[in-house]
Amino acid sequence: MKAGRLFLAVESGGTRTIASIFSDEGELLGYSIGGPSSHHVVGVARSEETLKAVISDCMASVGLKDYVFEIGCFGMASLDTPKDFEIISEMVKSMNIIKNPIIVGDHVTAYYTVTGGRPGIVVIAGTGSMGYGRVKDGVEARAGGWEWLVSDEGSAYDIARRALVYAVRSYDGLEEKTSLLDKFMEHFKASSFEEFIQKLYEDPRKHRIASLATIVATAAYEGDNVARKILKVAGKELGLLAFSVAKKLRIENDPIMVGCVGGVFRSGPIIFNSFKSFIRKKMPKATIMEPVFSAIEGAMFLCLKEAGIQLSENLMKKIRLQVRKLDH
Amino acid sequence: MKAGRLFLAVESGGTRTIASIFSDEGELLGYSIGGPSSHHVVGVARSEETLKAVISDCMASVGLKDYVFEIGCFGMASLDTPKDFEIISEMVKSMNIIKNPIIVGDHVTAYYTVTGGRPGIVVIAGTGSMGYGRVKDGVEARAGGWEWLVSDEGSAYDIARRALVYAVRSYDGLEEKTSLLDKFMEHFKASSFEEFIQKLYEDPRKHRIASLATIVATAAYEGDNVARKILKVAGKELGLLAFSVAKKLRIENDPIMVGCVGGVFRSGPIIFNSFKSFIRKKMPKATIMEPVFSAIEGAMFLCLKEAGIQLSENLMKKIRLQVRKLDH
Repeated sequence: MKAGRLFLAVESGGTRTIASIFSDEGELLGYSIGGPSSHHVVGVARSEETLKAVISDCMASVGLKDYVFEIGCFGMASLDTPKDFEIISEMVKSMNIIKNPIIVGDHVTAYYTVTGGRPGIVVIAGTGSMGYGRVKDGVEARAGGWEWLVSDEGSAYDIARRALVYAVRSYDGLEEKTSLLDKFMEHFKASSFEEFIQKLYEDPRKHRIASLATIVATAAYEGDNVARKILKVAGKELGLLAFSVAKKLRIENDPIMVGCVGGVFRSGPIIFNSFKSFIRKKMPKATIMEPVFSAIEGAMFLCLKEAGIQLSENLMKKIRLQVRKLDH
Repeated sequence: MKAGRLFLAVESGGTRTIASIFSDEGELLGYSIGGPSSHHVVGVARSEETLKAVISDCMASVGLKDYVFEIGCFGMASLDTPKDFEIISEMVKSMNIIKNPIIVGDHVTAYYTVTGGRPGIVVIAGTGSMGYGRVKDGVEARAGGWEWLVSDEGSAYDIARRALVYAVRSYDGLEEKTSLLDKFMEHFKASSFEEFIQKLYEDPRKHRIASLATIVATAAYEGDNVARKILKVAGKELGLLAFSVAKKLRIENDPIMVGCVGGVFRSGPIIFNSFKSFIRKKMPKATIMEPVFSAIEGAMFLCLKEAGIQLSENLMKKIRLQVRKLDH
């Protein structure tokens, strides 16, 4: 084990969990990946179990046992209400591995991956979506992220739902024909429309619906016009989230950074190009950051910042290169 | 008890259950109302229990015990899949009260309330929605009605969801201001936006969401532009369901009847006027029927038709007047 101060960063999400141990110089020492630990998805008991397993794997890989970190950061997908915060705080406290844990929503770590803490905006688009931004004096604002029923514009759930609605409407003769219906029916191995509907409602929970967004992306890149339109609308909706946050913070005319985090942005150029053209029109001075960072890096940046270490471009780049080597 | 042939009609829905006993001359002898018996809403056991209670109440009120009807009709809200049909058939069979039960989806009884069995189209809009039509030779077609996630255009669920989305988007600065947000927060007794979101997701099932549509109607009739727009779109969507069914049956240019059934149409003139103007434009020869009938009447008409009794305008009117006296 290397000398110097050690930090622990954790990313807890609806599809995976990552723990990372690193030094004050940004040296990546340990990196472990496990299954989902969002307690909204897997429940509190399974969440705790997974988090503990991934963290202790990571600690064991660098020869740490019964070690207590001075500073550590948890970036959590399921941190929406005061009740969520209470649940996760208790969970982290009971692990007894960090003296001063920083527990934040994953929009905050995402923001750090893009800006390193400087004024700017991040749009996160995975199963759900949200726009989040901060200015120099610590003032923050958000838009979207109010979950599947009423919000999460441009998220995988939103994309999949729009496509499902369109497919059903085209079956009913309410919209033009699209290849989406055949693709969905094939996915559900349904031999009739009624069977497709039955299988769809067998489990209409958000993660299952959101997972159908990849079918929309496939259809779009095969040239389906409806699918392309749905992805373009998603990109614009994600742009609108960023613009709304910028207006709230009164930085829509400033040369700020606007970044993208999450699987939806990595689904191909249609969404990202639509997002970019919306932002360029509405916020001409903004610098659009490619979706290069992953959430765990944001948690690592936050740890370093909390420890009083300056987040230089070089340090961020160094961390990014090491994480990418392990995570791709 | 009167002499002559007796019939039993049952309406089973997500909000209430009705049983009616009547003679071959359309004399209404018994009428009982109970709670919900849709097995999609209350489960199979509760559904059976409620159906049995309402039917035996109705039978007792006309002095019938251990009686077996020759003909009886069940109009069921939850008859979507072959599995549903199996469940309900078993249930009705085990009651042993009808020799030849007619078990149909409530879109079929609704169609009878409007047309008395002649060629035409009905649009049903309650918690869910559907367009359904028949032509002389028995050919039928439908559109919509594929449930809350992907369909049910213009239904109470659809109206409420659109309004909730709009309210949240207006909070986020993505849409213009509307009184809907305040009205929803007041309804949920929420002192903050976050509390409103939390209470909303405590039970996002379709009946609870659909029940919020009355708030949208109130806002619309108080002059809220967004609410008015949502109701107008709902009316147009319901018109589109009718038009799509008409095209499938190739009767869009015929002088057919197009009728409306369900609580959404009774919510005030905005939706119905929007529906009417859409139909008048797309199907100029159609006669639009006011939403005067209730679903139980359709089940009664079906019984009489099955018994070979001619459904004259007079007979339909006679039944309607008697039902209205008891149900308003």
